[in-house]
Amino acid sequence: MDAPTTLAAPQPAAESRKRAGRASRAAERAAPRTDLGCAYIVRGIPTYDVMGEENLIKIETAIDRLLAETGIEFRDDAETLALFRKAGAEIMGERVRFPPGMLREILKTAPAEFTQHARNPANNVRIGGKNIVFAPSYGSPFVMDLDRGRRFGTLEDFENFIKLAQSSPWFHHSGGTICEPTDVAVNKRHMDMVYAHLRYSDRAFLGSVTAPERVEDSIEMSRLVFGADFVAQNCVIMGNFNVNSPLVWDGAVTRGMRAYARAGQGCVLVPFILGGAMGPVTSAGAIAQAVAETMAGCALTQLERPGAPVVFGNFLSSMNLRSGSPTFGTPEPAVGSLVIGQLARRLNLPLRCSGNFTTSKLPDAQAMTEGVMSMLAAVQCGANFVLHSAGFLDGLLSMSYEKFMMDADLCGALHSYLKGVQVDDDQLALPAFAEVGPGGHFFGCAHTLAHYEGAFWESDLADNEPFEKWQSEGSTDAATRANRLWKKRLAEYQAPPLDAGIDAALRDFIARRKGGMPDMWY
Amino acid sequence: MDAPTTLAAPQPAAESRKRAGRASRAAERAAPRTDLGCAYIVRGIPTYDVMGEENLIKIETAIDRLLAETGIEFRDDAETLALFRKAGAEIMGERVRFPPGMLREILKTAPAEFTQHARNPANNVRIGGKNIVFAPSYGSPFVMDLDRGRRFGTLEDFENFIKLAQSSPWFHHSGGTICEPTDVAVNKRHMDMVYAHLRYSDRAFLGSVTAPERVEDSIEMSRLVFGADFVAQNCVIMGNFNVNSPLVWDGAVTRGMRAYARAGQGCVLVPFILGGAMGPVTSAGAIAQAVAETMAGCALTQLERPGAPVVFGNFLSSMNLRSGSPTFGTPEPAVGSLVIGQLARRLNLPLRCSGNFTTSKLPDAQAMTEGVMSMLAAVQCGANFVLHSAGFLDGLLSMSYEKFMMDADLCGALHSYLKGVQVDDDQLALPAFAEVGPGGHFFGCAHTLAHYEGAFWESDLADNEPFEKWQSEGSTDAATRANRLWKKRLAEYQAPPLDAGIDAALRDFIARRKGGMPDMWY
Repeated sequence: MDAPTTLAAPQPAAESRKRAGRASRAAERAAPRTDLGCAYIVRGIPTYDVMGEENLIKIETAIDRLLAETGIEFRDDAETLALFRKAGAEIMGERVRFPPGMLREILKTAPAEFTQHARNPANNVRIGGKNIVFAPSYGSPFVMDLDRGRRFGTLEDFENFIKLAQSSPWFHHSGGTICEPTDVAVNKRHMDMVYAHLRYSDRAFLGSVTAPERVEDSIEMSRLVFGADFVAQNCVIMGNFNVNSPLVWDGAVTRGMRAYARAGQGCVLVPFILGGAMGPVTSAGAIAQAVAETMAGCALTQLERPGAPVVFGNFLSSMNLRSGSPTFGTPEPAVGSLVIGQLARRLNLPLRCSGNFTTSKLPDAQAMTEGVMSMLAAVQCGANFVLHSAGFLDGLLSMSYEKFMMDADLCGALHSYLKGVQVDDDQLALPAFAEVGPGGHFFGCAHTLAHYEGAFWESDLADNEPFEKWQSEGSTDAATRANRLWKKRLAEYQAPPLDAGIDAALRDFIARRKGGMPDMWY
Repeated sequence: MDAPTTLAAPQPAAESRKRAGRASRAAERAAPRTDLGCAYIVRGIPTYDVMGEENLIKIETAIDRLLAETGIEFRDDAETLALFRKAGAEIMGERVRFPPGMLREILKTAPAEFTQHARNPANNVRIGGKNIVFAPSYGSPFVMDLDRGRRFGTLEDFENFIKLAQSSPWFHHSGGTICEPTDVAVNKRHMDMVYAHLRYSDRAFLGSVTAPERVEDSIEMSRLVFGADFVAQNCVIMGNFNVNSPLVWDGAVTRGMRAYARAGQGCVLVPFILGGAMGPVTSAGAIAQAVAETMAGCALTQLERPGAPVVFGNFLSSMNLRSGSPTFGTPEPAVGSLVIGQLARRLNLPLRCSGNFTTSKLPDAQAMTEGVMSMLAAVQCGANFVLHSAGFLDGLLSMSYEKFMMDADLCGALHSYLKGVQVDDDQLALPAFAEVGPGGHFFGCAHTLAHYEGAFWESDLADNEPFEKWQSEGSTDAATRANRLWKKRLAEYQAPPLDAGIDAALRDFIARRKGGMPDMWY
């Protein structure tokens, strides 16, 4: 299923282990799975395609014109300008204009689907095609829970969220900067974050993106776990990079992207367009802009290293036009995401799109109204990598412990949703109708007994009991139950095994790197 | 767009008024609209079709076999048995078996799309095709609000919900038994309910279904408002009837259905299948059963009066298999509804499907997680008439004032969602990109100023403010804001004008009918 690529095709786990070169690493990655879920979802229902061919072509034509006429600015990165110049773009200062069709041609070397390896190979994820990978939310400075309210995130919070994700069968990926560990210096925290992902999770994860040298640290730490040879041949880490919309890629970002690509590692490239601020208020224009920006970034990874894994990202939003505040989980970005999905598939690139968004400051009805609206858009639009699957609150300013549990539960529901309806003689149950007959009851019939277990997805949080039972048990709301559940899960958490030698090597690397650095706090 | 029918085609309002015969009624129905919404939604995006042709045919084959082999029981209604016998069904006692294809043939006389007239013609709704009509929830014995908790519903509550619906631009239909007015005798309350719909709303509504004579009262009261001639030629009232699943239609129900059909009025026919109890635990089997049951009911209306308006209804649910409790808003019924939509369109019948369901006992995160999951399924599956759009709590046992406001807000969001993404030069905004350029800001540009107003749907309930502002204003959750909003809306409510002569005639009718009746309380 992969597009032509100079990287190694994904290897079966057994063969991969041979390459790793160290028995301890091999044993580590073969450790048994600690969860009950699937490594990733393979969708059983089609995507929701809402736009017809004629309008898709109109948008694509506008994208081509935008890229050729207005173009995109690549700031503070002469190597990027040189790569684009060599590929045929028109360069004026830092402005790059692309002849129609140029970027589409370059993007043909990008894989339509690739594997990101986890240190436990049972958790390797295939990104692209019909596959869907859920990862926790990313980038909040604050954390929040019902007991302590809102506060700056710490490394302990960061580790807690990794543990909660690892404990749930409904995530497939450990994510990246789940919250900012603000108690660690800005120039050092990336190593603690990468270490925490490697230590407390055995799923795939995202590395640092905040500076090229931090990208290098992240990749180097991966080499200590996977082996340098394995990392040279396989994607084991990715970085999630943002466009500086409208139409600007900053040098710190493009240098980081190129570092991942050069190492054969993955990039997820995402514009953040708040309609009316960083883009037009009209959806079609915002979509055209977003696709143009992302195409240019994805093409850069291919110029740096043809075949490098890259994920076409998107993050549409809207705005409260009275206050100027961003809004999330509203209808326009939801339906816009469905269109973005169609456009990404026409580029044959894996898609990151939407997530579980809200502006609510509490894990309340607003939070989940907006969350479900945007999360259903994510799976319906065909997103292959859904960052921000869980925990997002307050327009991404806060990671909420309770919302994280609610969102994990929703991710579970979506596993069942995406299976669709199975149709065969057994599922159609005609003999059961003959057995039960009109006016009968299916509860005790043979077909029900045979299919009883696992017939329906079961929520960890919903209260389906009769009113009186619910009342006698304390009349709890969902937030209260979520509060109890995250505490229970943290108390029960068990770390996946990590080879002591690898652990020591990681700690040693961090100590050495941190040793010579003064703390930077901004 | 209508299928062949012996009923009059929907008339333009001007012509309808001529027929009504009484100037007061004409003036009444021409009263100006009191809301800012649309009479109904015409969808701008396609339905979400998740099942392929091969599996659809497998389900249809199973439906035909179920109808021919097990058949359906029609209890206590000899006339119904006679109608089916005459049409070619095989009758054994009360069991009716249908030769393959028979029901599909009969259903060809049912209109694919029809108009239900409202007393304000601006609020007439087209049901079927690409149209979507939202109506409040239906049938709860209890009501609930944050101040008073759960209690039995009263006529005052019933009237309050009609007023709240009428005050919102996001509903198109006044619904039916929004909650049971338990302070009025069972054999009399239907008249108070019909009166309340006619008095406090000027939208279309549902009449009584609990006994054939109450159906007749409902239609007679409609005649007092619309004129007998108009009612003879147009659909002005509908009844929402339930199958006694599995595979039983009760006589009290079929006689009521036939009374509406005979009068040329509408029927909405709905199985309620709780998988594992009234149907198989497997979705495909439950879907086959639901379609078979509904097809038989719809066909009966066509045998009673070919061309009578009928809505193909569905209400899939699931069960907590540990406790046996019903569950709502879960993923299996959501995706099952998408399949039901495909099957209903192949029958060319208007569809009622899904709604805003939950088992939560509070207007909390669970309520809206489940509500949005099922409500998005309703609009994505192509439902034309969405009963239970608002207020549903506690597995339909309670109407919640706060949830009603949250759901109304969601209905508003869906108006924008269903428009899809408009694509034209103006929406694509290429000149705006040239004006703003890379790194600029769209807030003040000409395109933004021109499109600023109405660019995005605006919630009445969501708090999008910065955390500090939200905190300084009381740190409210969505339920608290909903509580304030319904009180404000009730305080501001103004009844749509109703001609004094019609009002007196309705009151007189009720007084006369109630006069001779002893109160029945069960």
